[in-house]
Amino acid sequence: MASHSLTLFTSPSSFNLFSSPRLNPSPSYFTLHFPGPVKRPHFDLRCSVSIEKEVPETERPFTFLRDSDGDDTQSSSSSSVRARFETMIRAAQDKVCEAIEAVEGGSKFKEDVWSRPGGGGGISRVLQDGNVWEKAGVNVSVVYGVMPPEAYRAAKAATAEQKPGPIPFFAAGISSVLHPKNPFAPTLHFNYRYFETDAPKDVPGAPRQWWFGGGTDFTPAYIFEEDVKHFHSVQKQACDKFDPSFYPRFKKWCDDYFYIKHRDERRGLGGIFFDDLNDYEQEMLLSFATECASSVIPAYIPIVEKRKDTPFNEQHKAWQQLRRGRYVEFNLVYDRGTTFGLKTGGRIESILVSLPLSARWEYDHKPEEGTEEWKLLDACINPKEWL
Amino acid sequence: MASHSLTLFTSPSSFNLFSSPRLNPSPSYFTLHFPGPVKRPHFDLRCSVSIEKEVPETERPFTFLRDSDGDDTQSSSSSSVRARFETMIRAAQDKVCEAIEAVEGGSKFKEDVWSRPGGGGGISRVLQDGNVWEKAGVNVSVVYGVMPPEAYRAAKAATAEQKPGPIPFFAAGISSVLHPKNPFAPTLHFNYRYFETDAPKDVPGAPRQWWFGGGTDFTPAYIFEEDVKHFHSVQKQACDKFDPSFYPRFKKWCDDYFYIKHRDERRGLGGIFFDDLNDYEQEMLLSFATECASSVIPAYIPIVEKRKDTPFNEQHKAWQQLRRGRYVEFNLVYDRGTTFGLKTGGRIESILVSLPLSARWEYDHKPEEGTEEWKLLDACINPKEWL
Repeated sequence: MASHSLTLFTSPSSFNLFSSPRLNPSPSYFTLHFPGPVKRPHFDLRCSVSIEKEVPETERPFTFLRDSDGDDTQSSSSSSVRARFETMIRAAQDKVCEAIEAVEGGSKFKEDVWSRPGGGGGISRVLQDGNVWEKAGVNVSVVYGVMPPEAYRAAKAATAEQKPGPIPFFAAGISSVLHPKNPFAPTLHFNYRYFETDAPKDVPGAPRQWWFGGGTDFTPAYIFEEDVKHFHSVQKQACDKFDPSFYPRFKKWCDDYFYIKHRDERRGLGGIFFDDLNDYEQEMLLSFATECASSVIPAYIPIVEKRKDTPFNEQHKAWQQLRRGRYVEFNLVYDRGTTFGLKTGGRIESILVSLPLSARWEYDHKPEEGTEEWKLLDACINPKEWL
Repeated sequence: MASHSLTLFTSPSSFNLFSSPRLNPSPSYFTLHFPGPVKRPHFDLRCSVSIEKEVPETERPFTFLRDSDGDDTQSSSSSSVRARFETMIRAAQDKVCEAIEAVEGGSKFKEDVWSRPGGGGGISRVLQDGNVWEKAGVNVSVVYGVMPPEAYRAAKAATAEQKPGPIPFFAAGISSVLHPKNPFAPTLHFNYRYFETDAPKDVPGAPRQWWFGGGTDFTPAYIFEEDVKHFHSVQKQACDKFDPSFYPRFKKWCDDYFYIKHRDERRGLGGIFFDDLNDYEQEMLLSFATECASSVIPAYIPIVEKRKDTPFNEQHKAWQQLRRGRYVEFNLVYDRGTTFGLKTGGRIESILVSLPLSARWEYDHKPEEGTEEWKLLDACINPKEWL
């Protein structure tokens, strides 16, 4: 078990380094969106390297970065984007967990810390069966890996003589799914991640590559239009600070991504989603990702506070459980990070923390037209402009 | 929506004709195990034909076979294997549903019948939230399709001049998943299916091909060794009537198939599973499949009758729900028929009737060593010889 196949995946809902000696997976699961200079060709990122299995840690380290990564002479700033991104996601993890515990009023997150001797690691925090949330997971991780040269070469259209070896990459991200108990309080998911490759040493002038990805989306079982509008308007405000095209573009991307094809439904009522983002200033996109992560609490927590004590009956709960079933279907069947992680032997408990505590499947369930349940389903089938 | 891509899949847990205009699936999902004369090469069965969507029927037809299929001059018997297999699975469906309703003592199956104008169709029967079963689905279906000539050609090692056109095939099967309420009563799954191709018209002497597949396996949340032994011994008795090698071979095949790789666990405690079976007399294998289907009731119903009223507490129920979560994971992530069906736009309600009414996921749940829950998990991790 010493030698593994190492692969990285740019998952919106789980973010892990996966190691496994197998397999025969769907090409689509293995596609890393690697931005090229003109078009964005998709590359198959599979490389065989030996990595150690993750090791549990008793304490959170100050950083998961390798020693050499803290400062970066290529960066205009005093510390590298890698370092500042890790600082950002760890602060976001702290703040979101604090905000959740404040609403919980008693229940606390359980923390698991792990690292890899070669660099990188993660912090998983889970609060289960609380007063307000049935399951809340907030994870950060940092990954060092090596990508096959084909991915970089093709992007750079290098000549045949310019054959770089495998290219080291760095990735860091925060990923969270929050499932409340009350059927009128929505589920939230958010994930922000940053990728960077080294510059290939053997191709003179070939630059380091980097990109950002992420998003925040929410999944109510019942529609309160004021909640949906509030949630989307906070996303729009965050986007508009950077580019007026961001919200409409990333809102649609979100609707397209969280699509349960076999149901012809979206998982929920959307939000924003983006990937492969590198065609803006790096500093601007770091600020944008930071702004998005900071928007999670004002976008979500007021909605939960408003709905967490709304009286409900068994029927409301059963409908929430059915929608949770759809959540499971999306995550296990379509979500690229989850499916990839499961197939390559990732840290299972971190990957599957996105699944709800409980879910339900009824044969041929169809809400009656005009009911509140039907309205939600209709909005999942026909995504709306909420603002 | 008039033109679809038609594909057939030899699923152990769902059995459907799937129609959809897409997609970019995993090759492994699309592999039809087509038995060749020496080895068993695996073929990719994707072909583009136009088929109609299924049509609901108000009554069960006498047969789903095309008129021409009832008699078969190539068969030694008065009626074709196709016809006799359909008769067998429909009788099995009736008997299993009757046996379940008898134990239920009140709750009845809901039936959906559908057909395709070009031939074929199915009967789905579902009993939900009964006295004894939380969800019981028993489906039969008959499919007519066309497979790409490559599949047949390769199997026959035909010469380049011998280029048959697309080859019509026939498939029929019964598929069932039964989830009881009581955590001490096991879930059962069984599926038996028969495939047949036409003889290619343009390759003189090339024969018709056929094969059988199927299995019966069960998934308790708690081990009662007498139940496991009873279940396996009925499987073995059915196998031993035909070949002493069948039970050990198909028992292992079952353990290998129902493997949740990301957990390194089997879904349950096994049974028998086989596929691509054609290296025995066709009549013998038809009798064997019939015997296996007939063994479902004696193998399973006595266990449910014994356990259905066993007192249980919340902890037992929660453990059953966690194991149901594993069932969902297997079916949505690994089961070839389910994953294929979902990705190609099959009859979703028939495919997902295999999912339990409810399921549960707890973060990092680990049963304490030595407990009954631990014993079950241990047997799923380390498959045992029960006889």
